[in-house]
Amino acid sequence: MTKPLILVSNDDGITSRGIRVLVNVMKKLGEVVVVAPDSPQSGMGHAITIGNTLRLDEEEIFEDVEAYKSSGTPADCVKLAKHYVFNDRKPDLIVSGINHGSNTSISVLYSGTMSAAIEGAIEGYPSIGFSLCDYSAKADFSHVEEYVYKIAKQVLEHGMPKGVALNVNFPPKRNEPLKGIKLCRQARAKWQEEFDERFDPNGRKYFWMAGNFVNFDKGEDNDEWAIANNYASVVPCQFDMTAYHAITQMNEEWDLDVE
Amino acid sequence: MTKPLILVSNDDGITSRGIRVLVNVMKKLGEVVVVAPDSPQSGMGHAITIGNTLRLDEEEIFEDVEAYKSSGTPADCVKLAKHYVFNDRKPDLIVSGINHGSNTSISVLYSGTMSAAIEGAIEGYPSIGFSLCDYSAKADFSHVEEYVYKIAKQVLEHGMPKGVALNVNFPPKRNEPLKGIKLCRQARAKWQEEFDERFDPNGRKYFWMAGNFVNFDKGEDNDEWAIANNYASVVPCQFDMTAYHAITQMNEEWDLDVE
Repeated sequence: MTKPLILVSNDDGITSRGIRVLVNVMKKLGEVVVVAPDSPQSGMGHAITIGNTLRLDEEEIFEDVEAYKSSGTPADCVKLAKHYVFNDRKPDLIVSGINHGSNTSISVLYSGTMSAAIEGAIEGYPSIGFSLCDYSAKADFSHVEEYVYKIAKQVLEHGMPKGVALNVNFPPKRNEPLKGIKLCRQARAKWQEEFDERFDPNGRKYFWMAGNFVNFDKGEDNDEWAIANNYASVVPCQFDMTAYHAITQMNEEWDLDVE
Repeated sequence: MTKPLILVSNDDGITSRGIRVLVNVMKKLGEVVVVAPDSPQSGMGHAITIGNTLRLDEEEIFEDVEAYKSSGTPADCVKLAKHYVFNDRKPDLIVSGINHGSNTSISVLYSGTMSAAIEGAIEGYPSIGFSLCDYSAKADFSHVEEYVYKIAKQVLEHGMPKGVALNVNFPPKRNEPLKGIKLCRQARAKWQEEFDERFDPNGRKYFWMAGNFVNFDKGEDNDEWAIANNYASVVPCQFDMTAYHAITQMNEEWDLDVE
């Protein structure tokens, strides 16, 4: 029996600790190939590189693993893997992460980690983005390894519902062990930005974006609740963004006749 | 009666022809403020600027319109407008575009134009992204102005379903007039990339991403069909990406118990 072919990518860059943990877990499940950004790409959303050139260079960085670093975004990495690195081979699984920081709730839209997974889903491959809700570069990943293994193994066994990628988030390491895995919906929350206004040495104004995460969601079936209550959250995400319920409402109420 | 306050942004940059057309139409509907990128940002998806500084400078570029250019992405521009430019005022409408090029189907995920509109929806403001399916910098926008006006006016009158932004695409100018407006779902299609491999003057390899759009969708209720048949397409898009149907299926079939 051939081992499953697993593509690993991320958005923190190929030298981050999170991708190293992910590579080590995936090696227990199959043959691993890494294509990841050569530098951090956090907050890149589903950006792709058009109008600019891309670099892709093989790199010996993980033991016994074929690995490439690219100048591109996470979505670029998946495209490069599919159309260039793999050539005629097809991955059985695409995993992205483990991100240093939360991608719960609305952060899925800003997340480079999830854009790699969603790009995988668009191509029709079972795909998962993993994130640890701890922004520290020295974050402890020891409590999530068996969860990453379990979820990836379930995906390899069951496949993925069509048009769906998984957004998996883990609580930071606390004093008690994780309580388990919860299938969740995306919480209704947002970032409340503040702009820190400063002046450069030439007296010209510039800004730093800062802000706080605000959770409006009172439910107990969403990813924010799961993380707060020490569960791993799994949200199935779809790339069809159509608000079907709105079509009916607008067809009834709106006047869209142009004379 | 106070005039509606309308924020205009885009992803082709503040000097593009498309944003000029949009500003002129919006001036008929209310007071216009522009906050747009200082350079083209196509393909930026929902990227935001973290870990880097942002510039925002007032620019006299449109007649009788307060306008700012920013070094940030389209999503950054909406955040800067809300938290810095508007201060205590709240926009009645956020419009983005008119993009030089299609944002139908899966392109909504890669689109800077739509990320500005979706950012607006996350903040709770009625928001619309407009795109013309013509990539030419000299594209003819004359056939879409009354449609832009009509759709924006309907949004000002009816408001927007909660959690929804509109993705509006127009066919390129053809010999016959547009047939009307169709409310659509997002077509199932994807980009089939090819990587053009080249070598720089130092002999180091690099790539250009190229590719073709492939439409798998046989329906007549989607945005690709509308554009091909000379209708303006309007897709209501939501930022809740949860695949609710998949939760049920996975809860039934998967084993997510970790010992």
